[in-house]
Amino acid sequence: MNNSLKEIAAAINNSSRVLLCGHVVPDGDCLGSVAALGLVLEGMGKKVVMASPDQLPENLLFLPGADRFYTGGNGAGLDFDTFIVLDCSVSDRLGTFKKYLDRQLVVINIDHHINSSDFAHYNYLDPGAAATGEIITDLIGVMGARIDREVATCLYTAIVTDTGSFQYENTSPETLRKAAMLMETGISASRINVLLYEEKPLQNIKVLGAVLDRMRTSACGKVAWSVVEKAMLDSFSAGVEHTDGLINFLRTLKGVEVAILIREMDAGKFKVGFRSKGEVDVHRLASRFGGGGHMRASGCVLSGKLDQITEMVVGEAVKEVSPNGSGG
Amino acid sequence: MNNSLKEIAAAINNSSRVLLCGHVVPDGDCLGSVAALGLVLEGMGKKVVMASPDQLPENLLFLPGADRFYTGGNGAGLDFDTFIVLDCSVSDRLGTFKKYLDRQLVVINIDHHINSSDFAHYNYLDPGAAATGEIITDLIGVMGARIDREVATCLYTAIVTDTGSFQYENTSPETLRKAAMLMETGISASRINVLLYEEKPLQNIKVLGAVLDRMRTSACGKVAWSVVEKAMLDSFSAGVEHTDGLINFLRTLKGVEVAILIREMDAGKFKVGFRSKGEVDVHRLASRFGGGGHMRASGCVLSGKLDQITEMVVGEAVKEVSPNGSGG
Repeated sequence: MNNSLKEIAAAINNSSRVLLCGHVVPDGDCLGSVAALGLVLEGMGKKVVMASPDQLPENLLFLPGADRFYTGGNGAGLDFDTFIVLDCSVSDRLGTFKKYLDRQLVVINIDHHINSSDFAHYNYLDPGAAATGEIITDLIGVMGARIDREVATCLYTAIVTDTGSFQYENTSPETLRKAAMLMETGISASRINVLLYEEKPLQNIKVLGAVLDRMRTSACGKVAWSVVEKAMLDSFSAGVEHTDGLINFLRTLKGVEVAILIREMDAGKFKVGFRSKGEVDVHRLASRFGGGGHMRASGCVLSGKLDQITEMVVGEAVKEVSPNGSGG
Repeated sequence: MNNSLKEIAAAINNSSRVLLCGHVVPDGDCLGSVAALGLVLEGMGKKVVMASPDQLPENLLFLPGADRFYTGGNGAGLDFDTFIVLDCSVSDRLGTFKKYLDRQLVVINIDHHINSSDFAHYNYLDPGAAATGEIITDLIGVMGARIDREVATCLYTAIVTDTGSFQYENTSPETLRKAAMLMETGISASRINVLLYEEKPLQNIKVLGAVLDRMRTSACGKVAWSVVEKAMLDSFSAGVEHTDGLINFLRTLKGVEVAILIREMDAGKFKVGFRSKGEVDVHRLASRFGGGGHMRASGCVLSGKLDQITEMVVGEAVKEVSPNGSGG
């Protein structure tokens, strides 16, 4: 059951000591949303802890408030009365912070994923929003609070990252108008975009070259896939963090409908990313392997032998793009 | 001297047989602007020829009207009364169509470049517009004409390509609001983005790998540069057209302020592209070599030996990024 933004705002206004948290493997939308709402609540005089189950990626450390994120997961030091969960489709996405659901706090859940579940006391789930940051932009308005430059930087980042720079079909005219309003606070959107997308370590560039070199296609070029093994990363003195975003390049090949990047995390453990050009719902594809995400970007974690995993995930993707496949 | 949009609209309304033309080496903004205004004028019952001094790039052939562009340059078959020049900072950018300036036509010049010149009878030059397509969007409104899906597709393409998907600092809140309004006609912005950016021939991907592999940096990593020789293209069965856009990848390296890509067109003839992350004005840099463009994207053509050209352009770029350089 969905509450109204007015009910959500009232519940937040009643809070005093607030824990805010996003999802595991944090991205621009969950971190930007947590930071934006956290800064607004601090401005209202509330005690706030902004949290993340996992460390923040390097390219998001510029976010206002990023230096104060609590990632410990084991007692954030405050006697909270309210727990605000942002951008988590299911409570498992809270990682180590899931335990706060059992602590008699008022739980408020705000999300935009298509598979969101209403696990909280107050839920606002809007799959029509391109980003949780879009909802938070509206919520701050309903709360009667002001969006200053710092808050706008967080919200713009949330929206621009989850829409692929306004390129994905989740981008609505309303998304663009909200971004326009955020720009009018005086933020430099172009500087944010440079920090997000144009400050890549040399290792990213080197690994990209190798990933493109190893790229293969199936299903008459409709599925493109590549593999990153630990040995390859070692040869560039690179880590798994230097492979973020590389999968998007596989999708830019003409004719490709689904791109897959298989990355070795630990021996025998692989992170599989799926990207769609729009025709195939890769959220459904990842779900078959216990993963999740969005229609155009999803992922899962699989254990086993690389050859078998590759055959399995590429095989399922081929079915999705084939006219007589199992998709539908 | 600038005319008002109302005066421009009146001059266009008075026309009957119209030649519209953009600049040499056409891009999304000039082609989208020509096609959008051309389609609107046709809808008003005027005789229209949409023209381009050079062939249309493959990724822009989806534009409504693209199949009817006249690229001959030698008598477009109509006894024109009006010549509308779009997105050309100076008349030389008209290439072979410059001769129409001498034919007693009413000439209307609409542009957004910072170095625009008022070479026409009617001029509307607005360096504050992110794209000529932004101006055309306003102009169609002032003319009282309707923007249908086809016209909106052209205008959205013009704006999204000249703003780097709304990432460059030329993007204003008004730019985003115009894009929102264009989306409301029912176009699929995400589909346009796929056609623009995610339908790259395999050769592009292969050449990208090689360009990244050859990348070098100077000035403590502030200048990144790479070279594409004909022999390298031949080894991938690729042409110069498969190198479009690759320069942007050089700019994404951390610490880089200026990226340079030197491409061999013919023996001894090189096209040099410059990209800036925002601090350095590469339009000024290209101007020194007889080229032009924008603050963040510019280019020039040079003849000579590759080694000497590389040393020269990299040397000038190094001066620009160095604290005590000649820039300013």
